[in-house]
Amino acid sequence: MESTAQIIRILAVSGSLRRVSSNTALLQAAIALSPPNIDIRLYSGLGNLPHFNPDLEPADPPAVSDLRRQMAWSDGLLISSPEYAHGVPGSLKNMLDWLVSGEEFVGKPIALFNASPRAVHAQASLIEVVTTMAGQLVPEASIAVALLGRQLDAAAIAADPEISGQVKAAIAAFAAAIGQLPPRSSPRA
Amino acid sequence: MESTAQIIRILAVSGSLRRVSSNTALLQAAIALSPPNIDIRLYSGLGNLPHFNPDLEPADPPAVSDLRRQMAWSDGLLISSPEYAHGVPGSLKNMLDWLVSGEEFVGKPIALFNASPRAVHAQASLIEVVTTMAGQLVPEASIAVALLGRQLDAAAIAADPEISGQVKAAIAAFAAAIGQLPPRSSPRA
Repeated sequence: MESTAQIIRILAVSGSLRRVSSNTALLQAAIALSPPNIDIRLYSGLGNLPHFNPDLEPADPPAVSDLRRQMAWSDGLLISSPEYAHGVPGSLKNMLDWLVSGEEFVGKPIALFNASPRAVHAQASLIEVVTTMAGQLVPEASIAVALLGRQLDAAAIAADPEISGQVKAAIAAFAAAIGQLPPRSSPRA
Repeated sequence: MESTAQIIRILAVSGSLRRVSSNTALLQAAIALSPPNIDIRLYSGLGNLPHFNPDLEPADPPAVSDLRRQMAWSDGLLISSPEYAHGVPGSLKNMLDWLVSGEEFVGKPIALFNASPRAVHAQASLIEVVTTMAGQLVPEASIAVALLGRQLDAAAIAADPEISGQVKAAIAAFAAAIGQLPPRSSPRA
């Protein structure tokens, strides 16, 4: 059976900690819309990460070890983030700061979703940061969807013909880009 | 006596949580080099701030209330920050995220120090963010000093004729810019 080997694992990170978040809803819709061979899991640890401090790195705090495990598990990283004052949310950047020194990010395919087409500054900063960290941005899997102010939850997004079509196409493009990479060599949890 | 009224209060924020940090040392040197009428205080709460979450804002967590009080106390904000992966450290951006919604930042004079002249991406992002937040960047008070890798502590920075000259000139320029603003109307702690 080679079907197990073909499962593509994607870690999804929302840049918002709000209980009701358009970006989180967009990721939940992506989970609902994904075919069986694409396993998207929502990272829930962003708000529990300590503030990055290089002095702490020799012995990772447990929340950071968990982040590294989830990153190593994944074949690709999908981020959907709001923009705060034309910048990346600090808590999301803090997660990335913990990963700068590790190997988990190197060569990792990255897709950037965006619940507001107007959030161009944060998106540009994120692209600069993830490529500086040697992540592989997959532009054809990166989409901006006009969700802000529309109060759509994940089910409503998944039921919207236009948005769900965009999301499904992006996920398919992400999986295709991941599938073209060499097979994973390292063991995963 | 009008000398009390002429004291200029500056809140200094280091973007690094390292125990031994060039950016923190640069701010400590600024404190040591300041004349008596300029009161620079180092903010020590960055690592204790919760992750920004708009859901929490109606009742600020205590660490956020303390941040707002210190911002309201200050006539100007002086930031010295490293660059992580071409971006602003998440913990520093997280502090700014808490201040986006408040009045403390509006019109606040801002000086940006930088312990590495090569950290141009984070500096550009910071400028975009603080001006988006309606802060008033004071370019003549913003300096880049080549400290990285030189292991200089605050005393060594203050004793270095060239660097201390740069720092003193920047602080004087910052104070002059603040002095040209209309008098403060709100009571301060």
